[in-house]
Amino acid sequence: MAMQLLKDRILKDGKVIDNDILKVDLFVNHQIDTKLLDEVGEYLARHFEGVTKILTIETSGIAFACATAYHTNYAPVVFAKKSSSRILDSKNLYQTDVTSYTKGIVSKVSVDKRFLSKEDRVLIVDDFLATGSAVLGLMDLCNQAGATIVGAGIVIEKGFQPGRKILEAEGLKVVSAAIVDRFENGKVIFKD
Amino acid sequence: MAMQLLKDRILKDGKVIDNDILKVDLFVNHQIDTKLLDEVGEYLARHFEGVTKILTIETSGIAFACATAYHTNYAPVVFAKKSSSRILDSKNLYQTDVTSYTKGIVSKVSVDKRFLSKEDRVLIVDDFLATGSAVLGLMDLCNQAGATIVGAGIVIEKGFQPGRKILEAEGLKVVSAAIVDRFENGKVIFKD
Repeated sequence: MAMQLLKDRILKDGKVIDNDILKVDLFVNHQIDTKLLDEVGEYLARHFEGVTKILTIETSGIAFACATAYHTNYAPVVFAKKSSSRILDSKNLYQTDVTSYTKGIVSKVSVDKRFLSKEDRVLIVDDFLATGSAVLGLMDLCNQAGATIVGAGIVIEKGFQPGRKILEAEGLKVVSAAIVDRFENGKVIFKD
Repeated sequence: MAMQLLKDRILKDGKVIDNDILKVDLFVNHQIDTKLLDEVGEYLARHFEGVTKILTIETSGIAFACATAYHTNYAPVVFAKKSSSRILDSKNLYQTDVTSYTKGIVSKVSVDKRFLSKEDRVLIVDDFLATGSAVLGLMDLCNQAGATIVGAGIVIEKGFQPGRKILEAEGLKVVSAAIVDRFENGKVIFKD
């Protein structure tokens, strides 16, 4: 079910820190292996139909959202922003709060109201699924816009954290390219 | 020379604010037109040879760096980070300062030392070129690593700002998919 190529790469180049954090900065979220990126995008895209827009959150989600869009008839990608710059018009935003698992801080994230509407059928894409906070925030933005949420495509899911259960309880279809069951003595054990 | 498709799109969907800022959030840096993204990537890649790595800076550069990488034999993309999270190991970083033109603030940006080396032939990619501060910062990171800099690929250049002159004085080859000559009564006039 999950993506063997990604699982092999995690075993080879992923690094488990304190039996808690999986560091994949060599190929996912600092340096990006763009061939793997393309294949993850193809894998995620394959599981969803009728997608008209892909929604992610800066920063690490952007590459994977675009890679998935390439295999979804070039659907437009929208990325929710974490802070406002002076060219962002704050009265025309959908806003919500997201807690970063690795950074441990709450951020206000926003999307310009022009980029989500009730006509959209949205696939949410993100690099990690742990507590589900980022995806819940993106769902909230879609709900504010009245958009239909088709599902969530995740690169790496931490299966021992509550994210999937919480999202599935909301009726969301969740597809992950790799699902970590647990860390054992600094090694990654996958779910399937 | 420049890319007609992008120029047409800027004329259609770009918005000039205060005869100073060009807002392209409809297709470049908030919502991304992924078909255009792919074509800009192809355009930028075509102008450089022997690239082994693509370097950009979060956030808006990431999509275009990956799109260019797809047309550069899937070169790995590295994005410099603006802030450190608790999984970033600060003693192993190349660091430099970059001033954001739109936000008007100085940020410390960094790249893990494992991701730039003297074997690398680096293409720098960014969404905008104005004062050149971001590209100069990325060049500084490459120089700290002893990497060879092949050039800079830019999506939209503000030709009336000093960026290109400053970079060319450093010996850098600069290719932009669209070069804005000036804003006239809220309209964009291109250089070629």
